[in-house]
Amino acid sequence: MAVKQTAKLRIIPLGGLGEIGKNMTVIEYGNDMIVIDCGLAFPDEDMLGVDMVIPDMTYIEANLDKLRAFIITHGHEDHIGSIPYALQKVRAPIYATRFTLALIEHKLEEYGILNADLICTAPGESVELGCFKIEFIKVNHSIAGAVALAITTPLGVVIHTGDFKVDYTPIDDEPIDINRFAQYGANGVLALLMDSTNAEAEGSTPSEKEIGKTFEKVFSEAQGRIIVASFASNVYRIQQVVDTAIRHKRVICFQGRSMVNIARIASELGYLNLPENCIVELEQLKNYDNSKVCVLTTGSQGESMSGLFRMANANHKLSVGKGDTVIISASAIPGNERSVGRVINRLFQRGANVIYDRLADVHVSGHARRQELRMMFNILKPKYFIPVHGETRHLYRHAGLAEQMGISQGNIFVLYNGNVLEISSKDAKISGGVSSGSLLVDGLGVGDVGAAVLRERRLLSQAGLFSVMIPIRSSTGELIGMPEIVTKGFIYLNDSQELINEVKQQVYAIASERIVKQNGTDNSELVAAVKSAVKQLLMERTRRTPIIIPVVLEVDA
Amino acid sequence: MAVKQTAKLRIIPLGGLGEIGKNMTVIEYGNDMIVIDCGLAFPDEDMLGVDMVIPDMTYIEANLDKLRAFIITHGHEDHIGSIPYALQKVRAPIYATRFTLALIEHKLEEYGILNADLICTAPGESVELGCFKIEFIKVNHSIAGAVALAITTPLGVVIHTGDFKVDYTPIDDEPIDINRFAQYGANGVLALLMDSTNAEAEGSTPSEKEIGKTFEKVFSEAQGRIIVASFASNVYRIQQVVDTAIRHKRVICFQGRSMVNIARIASELGYLNLPENCIVELEQLKNYDNSKVCVLTTGSQGESMSGLFRMANANHKLSVGKGDTVIISASAIPGNERSVGRVINRLFQRGANVIYDRLADVHVSGHARRQELRMMFNILKPKYFIPVHGETRHLYRHAGLAEQMGISQGNIFVLYNGNVLEISSKDAKISGGVSSGSLLVDGLGVGDVGAAVLRERRLLSQAGLFSVMIPIRSSTGELIGMPEIVTKGFIYLNDSQELINEVKQQVYAIASERIVKQNGTDNSELVAAVKSAVKQLLMERTRRTPIIIPVVLEVDA
Repeated sequence: MAVKQTAKLRIIPLGGLGEIGKNMTVIEYGNDMIVIDCGLAFPDEDMLGVDMVIPDMTYIEANLDKLRAFIITHGHEDHIGSIPYALQKVRAPIYATRFTLALIEHKLEEYGILNADLICTAPGESVELGCFKIEFIKVNHSIAGAVALAITTPLGVVIHTGDFKVDYTPIDDEPIDINRFAQYGANGVLALLMDSTNAEAEGSTPSEKEIGKTFEKVFSEAQGRIIVASFASNVYRIQQVVDTAIRHKRVICFQGRSMVNIARIASELGYLNLPENCIVELEQLKNYDNSKVCVLTTGSQGESMSGLFRMANANHKLSVGKGDTVIISASAIPGNERSVGRVINRLFQRGANVIYDRLADVHVSGHARRQELRMMFNILKPKYFIPVHGETRHLYRHAGLAEQMGISQGNIFVLYNGNVLEISSKDAKISGGVSSGSLLVDGLGVGDVGAAVLRERRLLSQAGLFSVMIPIRSSTGELIGMPEIVTKGFIYLNDSQELINEVKQQVYAIASERIVKQNGTDNSELVAAVKSAVKQLLMERTRRTPIIIPVVLEVDA
Repeated sequence: MAVKQTAKLRIIPLGGLGEIGKNMTVIEYGNDMIVIDCGLAFPDEDMLGVDMVIPDMTYIEANLDKLRAFIITHGHEDHIGSIPYALQKVRAPIYATRFTLALIEHKLEEYGILNADLICTAPGESVELGCFKIEFIKVNHSIAGAVALAITTPLGVVIHTGDFKVDYTPIDDEPIDINRFAQYGANGVLALLMDSTNAEAEGSTPSEKEIGKTFEKVFSEAQGRIIVASFASNVYRIQQVVDTAIRHKRVICFQGRSMVNIARIASELGYLNLPENCIVELEQLKNYDNSKVCVLTTGSQGESMSGLFRMANANHKLSVGKGDTVIISASAIPGNERSVGRVINRLFQRGANVIYDRLADVHVSGHARRQELRMMFNILKPKYFIPVHGETRHLYRHAGLAEQMGISQGNIFVLYNGNVLEISSKDAKISGGVSSGSLLVDGLGVGDVGAAVLRERRLLSQAGLFSVMIPIRSSTGELIGMPEIVTKGFIYLNDSQELINEVKQQVYAIASERIVKQNGTDNSELVAAVKSAVKQLLMERTRRTPIIIPVVLEVDA
């Protein structure tokens, strides 16, 4: 390799640290740069009206000449969701395993992005990109095709686990490739970047196969229809439901756009085994006794307009009710607890038998718990450790575990997005930072909705808006009509005519008086006087604080 | 008693069924009516700008002549929070035990309500109200002074558990009075209304004393300050922290308004034992080594502006950081997960050692789980069962348990707010309903914020507002000035002058053309044309849908 070993290895997270979402990590050495993952985050509840959140990619754009490729560890949205936005700014080949690539392709089609340079890899394979050699290593996760990365750099090997768990009895019969990790561990690992999502949880995450027992029990007992809601991309979960349904002589019907789409993709690629005669369309269900029907649907997070949500609210051709058994095979993502709870309540109210994570083992996590993390520390014995993929508390808990596992405190780096970790042949240290942060996507706008607009939306959401329009003659400053009021989200207008009239009178008085006195000078004083008076009046009458906007409308007349 | 036994006993929940919050139940026989509890609910996340939610009390107002009293089971907000609103409409004596009454008094003072008729009772005591005799029975819960009610009616005994758990080793050394329940059970119970909050959870809720072990361990190990966040009203929890702190020679400092207030009240009444020389003010803390300090604060739900929130955000005189240990001795109420998580993240980031429910046993619930509920069914053997205090799924799970415990399905009633359960000497049935529902309190307004205003707030929160003002001469309908734009929460205005000008030009064109053609007739057509054009233009340019409000401002000039 042409690059001298005197250069430094730079690890720069652009997303996914201090948060669950928009994972993106830059690995850089000399004139070569690769980017691991390119995810989106779902908006926080205070990001009103925002569709999604993507990482600030300024640093990548500024170093386009170095960029060799995007390497994607698996196909979840927090790892692939920003690819369409990245490709609008920069072009580079995208490496991923087959199922991941299929999901990326599907996404790019939806965005109308063609001719992306997509390169299919597989566990056990390696690619050389500039001074880097990257090997893909099979891991278990709640989606097919998940891999870890072993990145051989001029300074040593960097292992990035991606999202993973250790499953000795996975549905696809391919456990995590511990042997390969062990070989890297034996040869020496410079740095480890490891999934922190479950770093709070003791023990080991159970095998995906464990919940098959619950499915078997429920299918044995249920008399009516069985409806299972889960994540469409969890093809292992889907396969277990399908297999159980077939054993119990039930036909299977897929509902919900992403469920239908991803099941099709997974089936075409051989990740999902769907015997043709067992799959039926919604319209055919009437030909089968309820005891012979299984429906697989989206909506496990209670998302409005998802399949399960509409079924629970009698807004779906398939109306769920007495005799039906509904399995919600997922746990609520933090922030979704209430919406999931509401769907469960609705289903009970409609008479269904509802089975969810509080009542039975219908879900397992896709992320390693502390005992599994210990195993990885043990096998890999990295010199440096960087906890990734987690909120601050997960990163700190993971860092604490690393210390317990013998990594010296000075070699553990809790990084935040934008930090630059510089590793030389001698040492490692955080060395400044690069532009990073959250770009909010709202409609066509990327990044234009910022703190100011969000603040306005928040204020509007709390007490609405109260606008007063004051027509004046531009030549003289004279008031030439009654003020008009526009208000939204503040009070129920039909019951508030008295208050509205009171405001109008008061504004009229202020505007008339002022004109007599000042005869058409600067309007800002009038605006301030009206704003203050209206604010005080509304506060007295309602104890509410809408955004108050006085508008002086100057007319030529 | 004067009332003939031919009358029917009516049980009417006005709140707390199908929800956690605003508990209120009417019990009525002949000309007598009592109301059990009078709580508020905290607004759902879609009730934008709403301060709190109270029950519709129309039915009580309409039957004021029958109302004998409010009976309050304990002092949590979802049982006492609506009392100030109730007393603005109806007056009746309020019966409660001493600590509950003190909290009610404190609340009424804040609302400026004086001369309420508050009557102090105690476990073991009874009161006669019309044809009812009500006995107060000690139960365990996460607040002092909680009682169940045994209501002897002309048709038999109705037991209302209030919120309860079974704690054989409570902090106040007074376990739930099982013997008294057993006596009622032996004599026959007509109907049981029982707390459903934990009806999803198997086993028994651990004793409050259990978490004392965790406190002991943490206090033994911590070197720096210890900060404990918990609910102020959980005096048992507070007492455990205080006792542990004193054992470890730490002084105690209370922070947060409700913590300070409730600790004072509880201490004055003897519910909290606070040795005077151990309690210090914030200003005195500097005189003590960090290892000798324990702070008790509000903020266990991550509430903004609470004690813990401000400490975590360096907005408090007591700045938490390296060396400090923070115990969050509570679990997140559904809906608060993210705000609690954010505070934990902040604390870790500031270097504190944070201990919370995922990591250690720092909290126990105040509600009975299924094994405790089984015991109550067993002891009380009620003829009729009505699950109360829970979301729909809790009520159904509780009903299922009742059936397993031998109550016939036809005698179990899953009621909703407003349902009337009529019990005669022969049978029981749901017999129609009364006015019920949620009144939203926003500022001074009670019930005036309804679906329409909330819908506007929701739309405003998603994409803001875009208002176009068009000045026309009222006499001729002629356009007499450039249209003005007011927009909030839609786009960042400084970057959008081009779009704003484009809209102005388009509206100007529409308004001018129309006037030539129609010469000042009805404005509604102009409004519709402008709205449609602006909507389309904004959609094309931004893919956002603000509320669009065209205003035609008629001026006299």
